[in-house]
Amino acid sequence: MKKRPVRITIIGLGLIGGSIGLALRKADRSAVITGCSRRRSTARRAMKLGAINRSSASPAAAVRDADYVFICTPVRAVKDILKAIAPSLRRGCIVSDAASTKAEVMKWAKSLLPAGVNFIGGHPMAGKETSGIGVAEAGLFKGCTWCLAPGAGASRGSLQRLSALVRKLGARPLVIDPDRHDFLVAGISHLPFIMSSALVSAAAKDGAWTEMSRLASSGFRDATRLASGDSRLYTDICLTNRKAIASWLDRFSAEMERFSRMIAKGDENLSGAFSDSAGARNRWLKNRR
Amino acid sequence: MKKRPVRITIIGLGLIGGSIGLALRKADRSAVITGCSRRRSTARRAMKLGAINRSSASPAAAVRDADYVFICTPVRAVKDILKAIAPSLRRGCIVSDAASTKAEVMKWAKSLLPAGVNFIGGHPMAGKETSGIGVAEAGLFKGCTWCLAPGAGASRGSLQRLSALVRKLGARPLVIDPDRHDFLVAGISHLPFIMSSALVSAAAKDGAWTEMSRLASSGFRDATRLASGDSRLYTDICLTNRKAIASWLDRFSAEMERFSRMIAKGDENLSGAFSDSAGARNRWLKNRR
Repeated sequence: MKKRPVRITIIGLGLIGGSIGLALRKADRSAVITGCSRRRSTARRAMKLGAINRSSASPAAAVRDADYVFICTPVRAVKDILKAIAPSLRRGCIVSDAASTKAEVMKWAKSLLPAGVNFIGGHPMAGKETSGIGVAEAGLFKGCTWCLAPGAGASRGSLQRLSALVRKLGARPLVIDPDRHDFLVAGISHLPFIMSSALVSAAAKDGAWTEMSRLASSGFRDATRLASGDSRLYTDICLTNRKAIASWLDRFSAEMERFSRMIAKGDENLSGAFSDSAGARNRWLKNRR
Repeated sequence: MKKRPVRITIIGLGLIGGSIGLALRKADRSAVITGCSRRRSTARRAMKLGAINRSSASPAAAVRDADYVFICTPVRAVKDILKAIAPSLRRGCIVSDAASTKAEVMKWAKSLLPAGVNFIGGHPMAGKETSGIGVAEAGLFKGCTWCLAPGAGASRGSLQRLSALVRKLGARPLVIDPDRHDFLVAGISHLPFIMSSALVSAAAKDGAWTEMSRLASSGFRDATRLASGDSRLYTDICLTNRKAIASWLDRFSAEMERFSRMIAKGDENLSGAFSDSAGARNRWLKNRR
């Protein structure tokens, strides 16, 4: 007897949604991948690229027979999508997302989804500063950590099945508490973005920017790379993770103050402080795989 | 009649000194390039790599017949080198450096070098977060801006000759006032370094670092790339450019405050602020060549 092909629906066909589709197709040629995008042209493009093989303009229709649903929109759009798809989800279906903050999403899922649906919040730790289906790629998740936060109603089996699927996409699943997740990513992802963006705006609003920009080199380019990220996406992230971000902004500002004081005083310990940071970063790079 | 080969001395054989040597050799096979390093093993390595073809352990001896001298040490070592080489420099010789701050260096050169020697401060806007002769490369300066700050006693001809040499290395010379230079690079280079280093130390000193570091991805890597830079080099930079850096730390901190307030208030204008930064950065990238 032939096995029924797995049915996966991806709502939101940007960098992440598109890359999930491409990676899925590569891992399982028989998978039926339904894509759903607000824009018809995006769905057409995703189909052409092979990221999806069916498309539907309505989220509710797109999820009707799905085994897995991935919601890959900016954080705050997840709420509306959950509302829209709730009545159409199959019993036993696994619903996940790819948003960068998890606590709010878990609350929405809890209040909006019916019993019998397994909600497991997700967050693949991969990205680019460019966005859209045009930059999606099958290898985006290779070796990356993929955070999974199972909702209270998710069965153990559903977590195992989603973990296996995430592994098929090339990632390493990591089960994590949503609040803990949000605190950790505020430090390693949201703060770096805000810092990047503040550096660009401090420089670009200065009268000397034209001259400065001629001297700016690869160091400035890399330190500000995140600032080119999708502003709507990051607004959603910041506004759904205010407490954790505020805490990291404070920690960062204390470190900036510490360096600032040492520089003002001409303190030679500055060298040790810089070298501690370099050492910590280099150890991190070494331990990454 | 055969033209006398040009004689160039490079003091300090790290990333910059080594790359100057390699680029010079590529541009002019007949050039006599004398290298001088505190460490014998570094000079041997530079010779093996072809960055220099003569070596001398003493700066004074190394510059004796030089047409051009490049001092490529951390900023504060430049002073001692100038003192050491002053009595041995040929009349008409061109002396330059590659340090990241210029105002202090210009003062030292003015007070330490004899009349008849042309001092022109220099700063190639190129770098890597790794240092040492091992990462030097002939193409490092390709397309980069190379700041030149002629001292009061430098002849117009010497500036033209050094500009031509810098072009041979692949760079675009830019004549600039030392104080202006220091202000501009504080914004696009020194502040980004301090910010990177503060981000690493804020994250790495937190109890959650082990967990965080597992989630940290390419965004964190790029935002902190500069923090892996040579801590002695950056200490010298910070301590010879305190006023300009303090001013940029203030501007940056005001921008961080602005973002922080918008996030705390849940202000939807955040999206516009982020998008302004993204736009400024993208225009800068587009205008770069």
